[in-house]
Amino acid sequence: MPTEPKSKHIPRATIQRLATYVQVLENFARDGVEVISSNPLAEACGVNGSQVRKDLAYFGEFGIRGVGYHITSLIAAITSSLGVDREWRMALVGVGNLGKAILNHGEFRARGFNIVGAFDCDPFKIGEQVYGLEVTCTSDLKSAVDAKGIEIGIITTPPERAQRAADHLVEAGVCGILNFAGARIHVPEKVVVEYVDFFHYLYALAFSITGSEHRSK
Amino acid sequence: MPTEPKSKHIPRATIQRLATYVQVLENFARDGVEVISSNPLAEACGVNGSQVRKDLAYFGEFGIRGVGYHITSLIAAITSSLGVDREWRMALVGVGNLGKAILNHGEFRARGFNIVGAFDCDPFKIGEQVYGLEVTCTSDLKSAVDAKGIEIGIITTPPERAQRAADHLVEAGVCGILNFAGARIHVPEKVVVEYVDFFHYLYALAFSITGSEHRSK
Repeated sequence: MPTEPKSKHIPRATIQRLATYVQVLENFARDGVEVISSNPLAEACGVNGSQVRKDLAYFGEFGIRGVGYHITSLIAAITSSLGVDREWRMALVGVGNLGKAILNHGEFRARGFNIVGAFDCDPFKIGEQVYGLEVTCTSDLKSAVDAKGIEIGIITTPPERAQRAADHLVEAGVCGILNFAGARIHVPEKVVVEYVDFFHYLYALAFSITGSEHRSK
Repeated sequence: MPTEPKSKHIPRATIQRLATYVQVLENFARDGVEVISSNPLAEACGVNGSQVRKDLAYFGEFGIRGVGYHITSLIAAITSSLGVDREWRMALVGVGNLGKAILNHGEFRARGFNIVGAFDCDPFKIGEQVYGLEVTCTSDLKSAVDAKGIEIGIITTPPERAQRAADHLVEAGVCGILNFAGARIHVPEKVVVEYVDFFHYLYALAFSITGSEHRSK
């Protein structure tokens, strides 16, 4: 029976932190830890304790006062609530360096995000074997999505080819797109898009460094 | 004269959206648009108009009621407030596929984030030329950081080598680290760390898709 989250309206910022919590909790579990209280969990995640308690409250009463969270139950509750306790089949479009890095990223498969197709429109790349997948022509996306039950597309093309890749993915019937290309894409409303923009992080970093230099003056 | 933001306490979520605003504003500017109102800007950014108005209010009164924002002034105000209107010199540690993708990412240099050193501990990679940089032994980081004025380190190693890379970077004297490796790192408090975790986005995507499937039932 899947755990129902307390509220369907889990804030986006919480969802983003949950990925960190799961990663850190899995590390603790791997080290044989069974129960953890919010403060050491928070410290390992780089957030404060009250934030962790607030975020985890969305997943029911896993915290036992004075004891802590039971790690495997908590991981199960979070992943079930988010819908990440099952396999998600994905297609990657754009087999450059970034695409290859993602195809070779062991954690994706380990966490159920399984890339089952690699696509490119470059005739020199088509047919090449990349980390166990044969690079296929992007125009064959639809048949692969149908045959392999692909739900998510990953775009790792140059920015100027991102829209074309998105169009192919939408036409093929994916429900969501993870876009690494530095370009906004237009898709029908029913298709969910997440943008991975490295500048979000660089801007935050520059701002923090500039701020801490001002403070230390 | 640098523009002072209304408040030094710009929320993190706003800072993350600012990178998107700057990207979209630069696209408009490139297309010859001089003034834009919040609603089309919001639409192009994939957020709502009131959010844009609220976020941009941190940067003073650039919105002219009934007219909109003057694009180049707004870009200048945002980038100056964030401290990204100057060059930031960076060193990358870990020249695998992801490292190469980042070294070859044209936008980094275009936005002032200039990778001036590439480091790896693999003797087979040391000496190799990658996109104009010679791969150098990680133990030589300190002299490069001093000689080239490097302030930010980028970690693109496998997870198990992330802490070692962080130790080298901290010892070399960087102020901030952008960590792409799927591992938490421990650094002194004065060093700012940003984690790029692809699972943040995959979790958000899975959660949105699962939610919209429930809604459409």
